Amino acid sequence: MVKSQGFELYALTIAYGQRHAREIESARAVARALACARHLELPIDLRAIGGSSLTSDASVPRDRDLTAADVQTSIPSTYVPARNTIFLSLALAWAEVLEASDLVMGVNALDYSGYPDCRPEFIRAFESLAKLATRAGVEGGRFRVHTPLIDLTKAEIIRRGLALGLDYGLTHSCYDPEPGGRPCARCDSCVLRARGFAEAGVSDPLVLR
Amino acid sequence: MVKSQGFELYALTIAYGQRHAREIESARAVARALACARHLELPIDLRAIGGSSLTSDASVPRDRDLTAADVQTSIPSTYVPARNTIFLSLALAWAEVLEASDLVMGVNALDYSGYPDCRPEFIRAFESLAKLATRAGVEGGRFRVHTPLIDLTKAEIIRRGLALGLDYGLTHSCYDPEPGGRPCARCDSCVLRARGFAEAGVSDPLVLR
Repeated sequence: MVKSQGFELYALTIAYGQRHAREIESARAVARALACARHLELPIDLRAIGGSSLTSDASVPRDRDLTAADVQTSIPSTYVPARNTIFLSLALAWAEVLEASDLVMGVNALDYSGYPDCRPEFIRAFESLAKLATRAGVEGGRFRVHTPLIDLTKAEIIRRGLALGLDYGLTHSCYDPEPGGRPCARCDSCVLRARGFAEAGVSDPLVLR
Repeated sequence: MVKSQGFELYALTIAYGQRHAREIESARAVARALACARHLELPIDLRAIGGSSLTSDASVPRDRDLTAADVQTSIPSTYVPARNTIFLSLALAWAEVLEASDLVMGVNALDYSGYPDCRPEFIRAFESLAKLATRAGVEGGRFRVHTPLIDLTKAEIIRRGLALGLDYGLTHSCYDPEPGGRPCARCDSCVLRARGFAEAGVSDPLVLR
């Protein structure tokens, strides 16, 4: 979406010890497909901090009814403490070095799992912080955090991607893939993805493979 | 200072590819001396991002007149882009896992080098962000970032430490130590430290060694 607006792309991937490290290979494939000027992969071991089923051996919830009220109002074990704050901080550092002022993050606050750091108020607070935190900010610049997916349904996201020519076969959503990398089809992320494809009326190339 | 207030201490050290990695050994010695419940060392390679003389081979400024107006109003090359935002984000993640609500950071906004992310307004903005960024915040908790050194002169900091029994021989300040770890005595950090000890009227045990 931002490429179609004419931005030059610098992709940042964090290898944080996530259970679904498979997504890092997908990030490489997507960065290549989008002809990013650079794709920086930064390792940081958030397993040393833990506190999440994505960064520990605690099991990932499966087969949850995502329409249930208790599911919609509670934050699941896949929440990684302060993860998006850490990710945005690293992106901010790189942006400052690149003299870039536009950060883009694919968070979604609609068809999502209730993570606090996917909400618009979090993003706005980070922008305020970025202005105070940096040389660029003190010198009069400001950083904008773009979240083009934040208020779209999964079905809308899928339709937009297809319209832009994205091959969803390159992507990855599953929190708890099988050893070979195949999606589990039962975690929240798989369920939301499947629901999105179903609502969009198209089939998911990942499932076909 | 916070130990004397009765807090249990969890120390976090970031090995970020800093030129003065010597400080990590000192952090271990200080954490031991303070009987921290745990000392977590997290590596993250900020050299991959660069943009600072502390994380690249660019030379560290020496022999600057820190009373000069142009020096006081400009941010030096030792500024590491978004560093304290990255540090606080990681501390926030760990705090959330520990169910701690008090973060402590030794920033100083008085006898310092003009870093934007050492200012009280940055610290307050981070506290606001932390409330929005975390499960703990959403559930009604709040994080406080304590900065007990922020408005003290270096001389005052030294006197407080001595009164509390701190051995400054365990500490490290130099940005650009010699291969054996000896302070250069010429970078801003050495100059500010020396001025602080001189004003406090005591000798620096590091220089004596």
